[in-house]
Amino acid sequence: MITSSSNPRVKQIVQWQNKARERRDAGIFLTEGFKMFGEAPEDRILEVYIADDTWDRAAAIPGMREKLIRTGCETVTSELFRKMSDTQSPQGILCVMKRPRYRLEELLSAPNPLFIVLENLQDPGNLGTIVRSGEGAGVTGIIMGGGTADIYNPKTIRATMGSVFRVPFVYTEDLEGAVEGLREKGVRVYAAHLEGERYYDSFSFREGTAFLIGNEGAGLSRELASRADSYLKIPMEGSVESLNAAVTASILMYEAHRQRACSC
Amino acid sequence: MITSSSNPRVKQIVQWQNKARERRDAGIFLTEGFKMFGEAPEDRILEVYIADDTWDRAAAIPGMREKLIRTGCETVTSELFRKMSDTQSPQGILCVMKRPRYRLEELLSAPNPLFIVLENLQDPGNLGTIVRSGEGAGVTGIIMGGGTADIYNPKTIRATMGSVFRVPFVYTEDLEGAVEGLREKGVRVYAAHLEGERYYDSFSFREGTAFLIGNEGAGLSRELASRADSYLKIPMEGSVESLNAAVTASILMYEAHRQRACSC
Repeated sequence: MITSSSNPRVKQIVQWQNKARERRDAGIFLTEGFKMFGEAPEDRILEVYIADDTWDRAAAIPGMREKLIRTGCETVTSELFRKMSDTQSPQGILCVMKRPRYRLEELLSAPNPLFIVLENLQDPGNLGTIVRSGEGAGVTGIIMGGGTADIYNPKTIRATMGSVFRVPFVYTEDLEGAVEGLREKGVRVYAAHLEGERYYDSFSFREGTAFLIGNEGAGLSRELASRADSYLKIPMEGSVESLNAAVTASILMYEAHRQRACSC
Repeated sequence: MITSSSNPRVKQIVQWQNKARERRDAGIFLTEGFKMFGEAPEDRILEVYIADDTWDRAAAIPGMREKLIRTGCETVTSELFRKMSDTQSPQGILCVMKRPRYRLEELLSAPNPLFIVLENLQDPGNLGTIVRSGEGAGVTGIIMGGGTADIYNPKTIRATMGSVFRVPFVYTEDLEGAVEGLREKGVRVYAAHLEGERYYDSFSFREGTAFLIGNEGAGLSRELASRADSYLKIPMEGSVESLNAAVTASILMYEAHRQRACSC
């Protein structure tokens, strides 16, 4: 059992918790809690830490003890665990996960792909919610520009409820180029835009489709929106000017899913 | 200009910021920021406070100065404003608003009403997002049990983006009774439930409709779900077990909106 805060592995975790850049350079991310550990693919788990007062809880969750034995884990004192944790009320289990690498070219080879393209989406919770809805709606992948929140932000990871392990995604510094690449492959690109002239449910999303979603406050940039084949909008009653970005993305992805599942 | 933190009005605001119960007993709620002031109905604005370094920004927003003159306002030092504010980076304008009172009986008299019923929804941001989507989708009202977050929580108010001023809502200690009341008036009640046997888009929501949405972690209680006419579910690909509660509510409300707008 690790009992000292000067233990080099403990110090490393604390540093990773505080510095997104060091996590990125090391090619890892951190997840906490039993839900996330339960969902984590075993071949990407690098290290597991468990607080000494957490073993009884772990043992009570079906399959948990067996998974911990397979992956191996280090026990740390609960006091030390609180220092290693990002949350106020830690659940007592933390994993170091290897980052997957997805390539846009591979994602593009899927038949009738469905993409979400995010430009400068700021809120980590919104991003996590989009990843979660994206898996549910069966997206092929999520494409993000450099201005979008870090998908490995602890808040984002929590909001994905495990989908971060399964939904392919890429970050690119050239979002306009990526959108052009989609169009060259025959993917229809739709900008969710307040100036959209047609409602979202009047389009067919059965073939290759990408939805562009912009910043929570400012929407899509003119430059990126101009790359779209069409602008679409979601109808709004009352005095509503826009919907939450994660809600907008989810409504569009689920409309695509509804059309694709429907034989009508 | 108010300059002293011992000013009784300043002390009152600070107390209201910290105590939900005192806000409720006083029949008021607090909103911050220019967006919210701009959206606030004038007949419900009781007091307005503006930081002394905010006047220039206010003057630059069309219509803002005129509205401030009509409603009246107190200038306070920017240092004092930071104490009165709930946010880390205050925008420099704060309103005391009179709470509206809605009655379920009145909401029920609408033709083909559309309701969202929330049971133990915990997250203030989720609640605010539902209110915002609810206005967009044209709901008649939101019905909440006592276990649901406070609609006047500052985080909730911010997430509504102004819809809190316009969407009717009621809290009730007897949510099961309220659902029975809906059914007696001919409203079809649907439980969003993981055990739903039919997908949401196979139902018609053109006539009176209510969607029951449960707690983020635990879902709907057995007791409330058993009052529904039907269970419905949203399809999920991959390993997703559920969607974010605000996303679930929004997808259902917009499906109802889509059906009602469509002449097909």
